[in-house]
Amino acid sequence: MSKPYSRLDIANAAVLMVDHQAGLLSLVRDFNPDQFKNNVLALADLAAYFKLPTILTTSFEDGPNGPLMPELKEKFPNAPFIPRPGQINAWDNEDFVKAVKATGRKQLIIAGIVTEVCVAFLALSALAEGFEVFVVTDASGTFNEITRDSSWNRMSEAGAQLVTWFAVACELHRDWRRDVEGLGALFAKHIPDYRNLMTSYSAIKAANPLPRSVP
Amino acid sequence: MSKPYSRLDIANAAVLMVDHQAGLLSLVRDFNPDQFKNNVLALADLAAYFKLPTILTTSFEDGPNGPLMPELKEKFPNAPFIPRPGQINAWDNEDFVKAVKATGRKQLIIAGIVTEVCVAFLALSALAEGFEVFVVTDASGTFNEITRDSSWNRMSEAGAQLVTWFAVACELHRDWRRDVEGLGALFAKHIPDYRNLMTSYSAIKAANPLPRSVP
Amino acid sequence: MSKPYSRLDIANAAVLMVDHQAGLLSLVRDFNPDQFKNNVLALADLAAYFKLPTILTTSFEDGPNGPLMPELKEKFPNAPFIPRPGQINAWDNEDFVKAVKATGRKQLIIAGIVTEVCVAFLALSALAEGFEVFVVTDASGTFNEITRDSSWNRMSEAGAQLVTWFAVACELHRDWRRDVEGLGALFAKHIPDYRNLMTSYSAIKAANPLPRSVP
Amino acid sequence: MSKPYSRLDIANAAVLMVDHQAGLLSLVRDFNPDQFKNNVLALADLAAYFKLPTILTTSFEDGPNGPLMPELKEKFPNAPFIPRPGQINAWDNEDFVKAVKATGRKQLIIAGIVTEVCVAFLALSALAEGFEVFVVTDASGTFNEITRDSSWNRMSEAGAQLVTWFAVACELHRDWRRDVEGLGALFAKHIPDYRNLMTSYSAIKAANPLPRSVP
Amino acid sequence: MSKPYSRLDIANAAVLMVDHQAGLLSLVRDFNPDQFKNNVLALADLAAYFKLPTILTTSFEDGPNGPLMPELKEKFPNAPFIPRPGQINAWDNEDFVKAVKATGRKQLIIAGIVTEVCVAFLALSALAEGFEVFVVTDASGTFNEITRDSSWNRMSEAGAQLVTWFAVACELHRDWRRDVEGLGALFAKHIPDYRNLMTSYSAIKAANPLPRSVP
Amino acid sequence: MSKPYSRLDIANAAVLMVDHQAGLLSLVRDFNPDQFKNNVLALADLAAYFKLPTILTTSFEDGPNGPLMPELKEKFPNAPFIPRPGQINAWDNEDFVKAVKATGRKQLIIAGIVTEVCVAFLALSALAEGFEVFVVTDASGTFNEITRDSSWNRMSEAGAQLVTWFAVACELHRDWRRDVEGLGALFAKHIPDYRNLMTSYSAIKAANPLPRSVP
Amino acid sequence: MSKPYSRLDIANAAVLMVDHQAGLLSLVRDFNPDQFKNNVLALADLAAYFKLPTILTTSFEDGPNGPLMPELKEKFPNAPFIPRPGQINAWDNEDFVKAVKATGRKQLIIAGIVTEVCVAFLALSALAEGFEVFVVTDASGTFNEITRDSSWNRMSEAGAQLVTWFAVACELHRDWRRDVEGLGALFAKHIPDYRNLMTSYSAIKAANPLPRSVP
Amino acid sequence: MSKPYSRLDIANAAVLMVDHQAGLLSLVRDFNPDQFKNNVLALADLAAYFKLPTILTTSFEDGPNGPLMPELKEKFPNAPFIPRPGQINAWDNEDFVKAVKATGRKQLIIAGIVTEVCVAFLALSALAEGFEVFVVTDASGTFNEITRDSSWNRMSEAGAQLVTWFAVACELHRDWRRDVEGLGALFAKHIPDYRNLMTSYSAIKAANPLPRSVP
Repeated sequence: MSKPYSRLDIANAAVLMVDHQAGLLSLVRDFNPDQFKNNVLALADLAAYFKLPTILTTSFEDGPNGPLMPELKEKFPNAPFIPRPGQINAWDNEDFVKAVKATGRKQLIIAGIVTEVCVAFLALSALAEGFEVFVVTDASGTFNEITRDSSWNRMSEAGAQLVTWFAVACELHRDWRRDVEGLGALFAKHIPDYRNLMTSYSAIKAANPLPRSVP
Repeated sequence: MSKPYSRLDIANAAVLMVDHQAGLLSLVRDFNPDQFKNNVLALADLAAYFKLPTILTTSFEDGPNGPLMPELKEKFPNAPFIPRPGQINAWDNEDFVKAVKATGRKQLIIAGIVTEVCVAFLALSALAEGFEVFVVTDASGTFNEITRDSSWNRMSEAGAQLVTWFAVACELHRDWRRDVEGLGALFAKHIPDYRNLMTSYSAIKAANPLPRSVP
Repeated sequence: MSKPYSRLDIANAAVLMVDHQAGLLSLVRDFNPDQFKNNVLALADLAAYFKLPTILTTSFEDGPNGPLMPELKEKFPNAPFIPRPGQINAWDNEDFVKAVKATGRKQLIIAGIVTEVCVAFLALSALAEGFEVFVVTDASGTFNEITRDSSWNRMSEAGAQLVTWFAVACELHRDWRRDVEGLGALFAKHIPDYRNLMTSYSAIKAANPLPRSVP
Repeated sequence: MSKPYSRLDIANAAVLMVDHQAGLLSLVRDFNPDQFKNNVLALADLAAYFKLPTILTTSFEDGPNGPLMPELKEKFPNAPFIPRPGQINAWDNEDFVKAVKATGRKQLIIAGIVTEVCVAFLALSALAEGFEVFVVTDASGTFNEITRDSSWNRMSEAGAQLVTWFAVACELHRDWRRDVEGLGALFAKHIPDYRNLMTSYSAIKAANPLPRSVP
Repeated sequence: MSKPYSRLDIANAAVLMVDHQAGLLSLVRDFNPDQFKNNVLALADLAAYFKLPTILTTSFEDGPNGPLMPELKEKFPNAPFIPRPGQINAWDNEDFVKAVKATGRKQLIIAGIVTEVCVAFLALSALAEGFEVFVVTDASGTFNEITRDSSWNRMSEAGAQLVTWFAVACELHRDWRRDVEGLGALFAKHIPDYRNLMTSYSAIKAANPLPRSVP
Repeated sequence: MSKPYSRLDIANAAVLMVDHQAGLLSLVRDFNPDQFKNNVLALADLAAYFKLPTILTTSFEDGPNGPLMPELKEKFPNAPFIPRPGQINAWDNEDFVKAVKATGRKQLIIAGIVTEVCVAFLALSALAEGFEVFVVTDASGTFNEITRDSSWNRMSEAGAQLVTWFAVACELHRDWRRDVEGLGALFAKHIPDYRNLMTSYSAIKAANPLPRSVP
Repeated sequence: MSKPYSRLDIANAAVLMVDHQAGLLSLVRDFNPDQFKNNVLALADLAAYFKLPTILTTSFEDGPNGPLMPELKEKFPNAPFIPRPGQINAWDNEDFVKAVKATGRKQLIIAGIVTEVCVAFLALSALAEGFEVFVVTDASGTFNEITRDSSWNRMSEAGAQLVTWFAVACELHRDWRRDVEGLGALFAKHIPDYRNLMTSYSAIKAANPLPRSVP
Repeated sequence: MSKPYSRLDIANAAVLMVDHQAGLLSLVRDFNPDQFKNNVLALADLAAYFKLPTILTTSFEDGPNGPLMPELKEKFPNAPFIPRPGQINAWDNEDFVKAVKATGRKQLIIAGIVTEVCVAFLALSALAEGFEVFVVTDASGTFNEITRDSSWNRMSEAGAQLVTWFAVACELHRDWRRDVEGLGALFAKHIPDYRNLMTSYSAIKAANPLPRSVP
């Protein structure tokens, strides 16, 4: 009856970043801007860190929607980039679907603007085709909380799993020993509280070095 | 297990606007009034824009509930208009059900006042008869958030899909190329942030015209 | 897959009011006190208005939990009143279950304090025995929103329908013509905005009497 | 000790609208967009309705700040319009100050974007030169509530009076009998709840016409 | 430098209730309706309890603003009642000012709808004429919190004291021994939490009567 | 279709407390700190009171995550304590799973930091292995409400029941008569409002002792 | 013009705790209960720590208001304790004023329930008699935020300084070197975040001891 | 009566950054962490950009309070850095006061952690010595909103001006023409919405280059 636990797997996951464009960003009001920008970049950083196949797409870049966030372009210079000529649901764009299928991945990690349209439509379509869908709720933005809550409900009821960038990173990493430095750096960059912990820790440790063994 | 993706289709959808009456509007407190009025009119505008069969109904217009919002009357002069003599659930009104069935549509887009009664009862009854129900959450209002959350839960659990007017418009339109001007005008009218994007875009473009080709 | 629409029926519904006690009321902080008191009394009034079998129960009235709200005692002088000697879940009390079964009703409308315990446990037990359960969310109170949200989720997932006192009244009444005066009075008493509508309506009408027919 | 009551006077007031530009509007997050747009247009409408001298100014219209809201340009085709070439505080712009002084008014009604800069600096400078300053708080927007509260405090402490567009309209009008229709139309256009009251009132009255006198 | 402590005095205070009309009540959105209605009636009850001279006034009762709340009319059948023919600021109405001055009181306790207009204008005018003004913040309502905060600031800066109905009652009463029953009844009627305390207290006491002295 | 009612049973439940570490606590921002600390200690106290098998685990205690809350160490000196060398999901740690299985319990009561990672992963894995999972929502903390809501959705959809520490205590206890003093003490310690009720009750009772029977 | 900086001085300050009674605590709804209880006890602890003269008073302890919080009685067994027989403003009670004057202190640190009555009246009276008044805002509670904001405004305008228990402690202590252990213990007891910092700090330091000097 | 407009002046202002330490940052809960970090770094960047004398100070760096944020150390390698050995109010530290006076500046721009202690005490002391004080409200953090509001009130009443980092930058810069690129870069770095405007602007402009003049 319940959704089975589909666990994110580095070898089976891909990231789809949808319409994180300069103009559309001004529509996002269910996050404060500092927080939302940080979340989007954190998702990008983790996609790169875990070397997940990543696909970028935009809608009407030349019009008022504006260009893709420059940081994303820089982060993924070689990723498939599909500027859609008009399709609102990226799944209606053949090139996009081809790019997704070309990854060979079955777990799609999706984030975008706005949640109830570009994210939800894609999520619903991908679910309908048998993909596992993980919506990154905190890297997806929209007009207000009412809209967000409606669209979360719709996607969840259709079978999507709601996750955050931090949950994605942790579920992919699984064991800190895989790379303590790398994951720590990712967290320190995007979680100020975590960075504070590390700063204090290092300072106290530096002030209290382990005694050298004494002969 | 999950709800399948029922995609809104211009050829298969109808809009039911329930009890958006002047008196009842004073009961709506889960939105600020500017926002709610805008959402209701946006839904009306999209119904007209997509030429969806639209049915209006009211409850006790002659009493304290007050008359239908005048804008709706003007917008849909020829739409079936069913003033219910007493039935709270519009589905209990034969004329209303006949009007719905006369559209031949199977996807019902429903909004109204108040969410947990006139919207929810109708949604639940229509679902029970096999219709697909899309509740426009941001064009449906009620007393407070607690009431809203309860009724969303009840409708969602019964199979309704929760959507917003913007999601409805986008899901129906599917491809901007279908009519860029028309959809853009709809959004500019009802989304101030979108209008700002268009204003800036036009201004910059006007100030930087494409170079005429030089012989 | 979805919950079927179980429609409240005057002939098949009973009301269970659980632990609305003077002491426990001080624990309720997910409503403001004026609003919560009004909601509880509105539920009591509608139970009486629709002549629904109503059962009252309390927990440890003689201790710090305090006595039942006096208004409830006065409202239902002849209703079964089950002071539980210790059982937290009213369904663990044989007398209570007997009283419920004695009503012969299958639709249980439940409200109480606190939501995640006295309401939820009873709801879950009654569902497990095949009753239909309608939780009156706005006449059930608890410590804070986090607690409320958790318990709503638990009850909804177990099959309960979340409703409000106003939805209950409307779903039972079905048609205003059944008794316009009575329902109007109920609403005017418990919904200040509705009363305002009626006050204004009456005043304008009084100032503009229908012309007597002129011979 | 207390600020004396300086009452707004049609013959002595002017309106200064500062930097309501398409780009800057995307920075305003202490209002929802529908509400803020409505407030700004309501202030413009009242300025026109009361025929108050009105001055428009912008900052860097040709750059990212974007052009003035088109509605304002249309509303005040003949008003002094001062695009500032660089001064952040409009009072640092000689043309602007000249335009203000040319009105001969001593009561300055100020609104703009963003509150703590373009509004506050102007308000503080005008106060320092002996003008009476009325800040229209709900037609002035900024990044968040913390910023708003800080800047309100700073302006109030410097002697500004905090008002809203509705208070301004009422204080200028003073007596409904001056023009019932005009003021009513202004309110109906910008206050949905007020419009609802008028719609209901007219409907009930129409349905209950005063009896013609019978011979 | 600071405002001196002007203490409310039964012999020197009067209550002015301004425009608590059925239509205007629908504009009040900075309180939930149950809470606001209770606050207004509590103020009325305390005015009657302390036998304070009370003056009622309305604006345009015959139009959309609607009639005075019926409870107020019933509560003060003999109080001066000044329906203003058009003046927005009640102080502009000679009859109203005469009625105020006829009380001989210097401390004016003011509440009304909406806060930034009918309450604030009256408060500012009365202050300008040397009265002491106490604004009952929780029996005065308006469109939203932004408006409320602006108008509180304006009134406070002009010298008004911000109080609540409960503070007014306590400051007038001064000593419980003056009338324990009466004040207790007032509180129990309008403060559910207080009533709960009294209910529990009485119940426990009744269950544990003081031992009769034993010979 | 609905989740069946799995009732918590003292003989079948175990408590898993995951990563309540001094450093990680600084990440928790969906509760105020006083409230969260109280909730965690309440859960610990109830685990001890009901003598439930309790397992503690931490992640990287020697690094910035910091040591386990000292109160937990003191409370459960003999409980299995599994400092995980790197596994983020405690279920990936063999010792932890062994400890869980060694309890022989099938109902796992889980709380921890942060909700969407250490709690959710463990909950999902345990569900996948057929355990019944009860997530203690108010003793589990994370970065913000958006994250919390996402993770609650994910866990609930996978079959977890969302509960609070108070619901857990009441569901386990079932009948006050099992131990009135003990449960009362637990509540008085962790629910200030409840303690107030008890304080008042005792005081009134002490002042009104039952009359000794008189010969 | 501005209030001069009156700095709290251990030799010149006294603490007045007003009506922190078990029954009245149930009226406090502008704090969550865990937070408020902690704040009150923190104030008590700092009063004891700094050996400030402390005066306790209650209103109608034998009635529904209930007894003083037991922790306060235990903390200050020898402090003047003035149960007021009826005066609402403690300054109207001669014994209380005598007790205050007997301390010889001029800086009064005041906290109590409810803010706008028992705290505000006392603060206003003490200011009127020339005392310096410091209202501990976070150890004073009342019905809701509207009430709180009104009463803060009234007290501040009358010359009171608004402080919190933490600010009071720091302003009295002035220099950590006065007693690092004592102040640290006070903070660790009442600020969970601070305790976490100390726990982590100690743990890291313990794990990394300073190297003993090596011969 | 009102505070005169003291305008920030590049030649007369200095920045004091107080106790922005890694440990203390975990106490800040009146901002979300992304937002607060950004505000603090924005203040640092503007101090550097305008070459304002800047003084750093910390409290107990070697203890749980933790080291200064590393970014601040790097930003101001040559700024006076005063680690206070124990004084809570930086003004009690002679070295700090000397460093302030050595700047020769009279306008002190202050930010720090926590607002009601390290910021407020310093602000109050500096005001008492005749400095002009500008508190940067959004780069100063504390436990919660209640604490923030109290301390803002105290500082404002003592004569401090409440500003934000953005207001400070604009008030110092005065005219965009002074350095369009520099100020724009500062804003783009710290205001995501502003950066979006610039990104879109550049993109549109690039796509629509000014026509070269044609011979």
